[in-house]
Amino acid sequence: MTISELGEFGLIEAIAAALPRSERTIVGIGDDAAVLTAPDARVVATTDLLVEGRHFRRDWSGPADIGAKAAAQNLADIAAMGAIPVALLVGFAAPGDVAVAWARDLMAGLADECARAGATVVGGDVSGADAIVLAITALGDLGGRDPVTRSGARPGDVLAYAGVLGESAAGLALLEAGLTEPAALIAAHRRPAPRYAAGPEAAALGATAMIDVSDGLLADAGHLARASGVQIDIATVRLPGHPGLAAAAAALGGASTAGRDDPAGRDDPAGRDAALDWMLTGGEDHALAATFPPGRELPSHWTVIGQVREGQGVLVNGNRVTGRAGWKHFSD
Amino acid sequence: MTISELGEFGLIEAIAAALPRSERTIVGIGDDAAVLTAPDARVVATTDLLVEGRHFRRDWSGPADIGAKAAAQNLADIAAMGAIPVALLVGFAAPGDVAVAWARDLMAGLADECARAGATVVGGDVSGADAIVLAITALGDLGGRDPVTRSGARPGDVLAYAGVLGESAAGLALLEAGLTEPAALIAAHRRPAPRYAAGPEAAALGATAMIDVSDGLLADAGHLARASGVQIDIATVRLPGHPGLAAAAAALGGASTAGRDDPAGRDDPAGRDAALDWMLTGGEDHALAATFPPGRELPSHWTVIGQVREGQGVLVNGNRVTGRAGWKHFSD
Repeated sequence: MTISELGEFGLIEAIAAALPRSERTIVGIGDDAAVLTAPDARVVATTDLLVEGRHFRRDWSGPADIGAKAAAQNLADIAAMGAIPVALLVGFAAPGDVAVAWARDLMAGLADECARAGATVVGGDVSGADAIVLAITALGDLGGRDPVTRSGARPGDVLAYAGVLGESAAGLALLEAGLTEPAALIAAHRRPAPRYAAGPEAAALGATAMIDVSDGLLADAGHLARASGVQIDIATVRLPGHPGLAAAAAALGGASTAGRDDPAGRDDPAGRDAALDWMLTGGEDHALAATFPPGRELPSHWTVIGQVREGQGVLVNGNRVTGRAGWKHFSD
Repeated sequence: MTISELGEFGLIEAIAAALPRSERTIVGIGDDAAVLTAPDARVVATTDLLVEGRHFRRDWSGPADIGAKAAAQNLADIAAMGAIPVALLVGFAAPGDVAVAWARDLMAGLADECARAGATVVGGDVSGADAIVLAITALGDLGGRDPVTRSGARPGDVLAYAGVLGESAAGLALLEAGLTEPAALIAAHRRPAPRYAAGPEAAALGATAMIDVSDGLLADAGHLARASGVQIDIATVRLPGHPGLAAAAAALGGASTAGRDDPAGRDDPAGRDAALDWMLTGGEDHALAATFPPGRELPSHWTVIGQVREGQGVLVNGNRVTGRAGWKHFSD
């Protein structure tokens, strides 16, 4: 059955019936608006659009993965404020010939990722459209902590990250080349697994600034540097080796971007260069990058990779970065 | 200049610079997420998608009107819970060749309507897309009152509405026929003006159920009846005469839907029939419809038009409604 045959209200009912409710939901799906508890007396809110053909492809990702990824990128934005994700609202526009089962699996993926983050889907909207568009809004709770913005980094702080870097970009490169291995990287592209708890944890540890790495580490460190009025210098030697990324580069052979754009300007083997490129410029893994005061002891899943200084911009190994620094969504 | 030339971050900056801030905004545009005060310790949230060609047409509405209308339909959903609108998040997907001035005017329209409701734009997202899509999320504050859901109507209650009915549908019919008069109705279609304050007011007056009339009075009264497990009987004699709607019907002449689908089955002149049809089935004016306990004294801008009884469904003048009862978004 298609969503056109089922109709708007039927689709909403089918979706709502499958979704769990949270004790924080006072009014859930099916009214003019949802009502949630906000015990902190503040609410954190973020929204993202995902457009078919630009942010995902139905031939490269199944509906559950698309849903999970859409949820993840919004929930990670909540975590990057130091907040706990609470709720998602989901706008879903699609051609009428999309199967109801596809829409239901999409919503199951959204719900699964919400559950991983401790959140629930509390509302949404459906519409017809020529291409699938997902509009996700996530709400979060600060739990009494101050929000960690992008603007608090100070000279002397260190830059650290939690999560993974470069895997989604490598997975995308493999898909673009028609490859299916290493499968773990393709899975990482289809369904990133942000470490949501690291956000509130960083806030509790005294993080001075934090950002969700969605445009690539260099670009997002650039956002931190700009908002904070500081310079950030990333030491590539601190980035952990990643055999999977090197294997992906080898699988891609000459088709990879290896060495083409190495910001460090070093003379490494092609595999290491490609891995570094993906780690520095690949988005969509939704690692968290945060700055901490000097000498702060961090759990082992936070890796210190850089230094905050007076100045501006982002350096890699002390050198000014040139070349691409994140996606430009409007350019083709 | 086009938004493609300006780029994603440039567009966000251009938009953000023009938007007012509210004292309720702790963190506004430009971080991973917005942070707002929620002094009530609950938050009301709703989201809507608007798709070019389905919810608006660029040749029929300018960007400021499209923005204002997109804001209005979400802010009205907040009001329909008995809450005060506080904030909007705006997802904006568009082809790269859209002019920056167009996007800026759209955002100005959104901001203007927010200001009318006492809210501000606090965040959003931009993306490329083949058609313009607006994804709006509104947040609201209950101010210590209980939310007014759709499910609280009880036999013996009266049904009342605040705002206007049928004007947007009449304006749309005029546009579809290539007419430009009555101009007030075309303006009402392009930019509805919901009576936001009537929502919290109804809550304070003890409204038992409430809904934003977005699918048409019959369809939305049907939602109230279904959620509450009651029957609602609308008396058309209580609906105020509307010379503008009658004039629109006259202007449309034989092209109007006059008399074709009169739910009351009466034998009125064509103008009155068309006006009644628009008032009963036209959406997008975003009037508020609410049920109140019997004998409750209501301000004059609330018009009592019906009676809640035991049973189910919606009657018009005691007769079961047949025919269209609201839009079906997926059907063409």
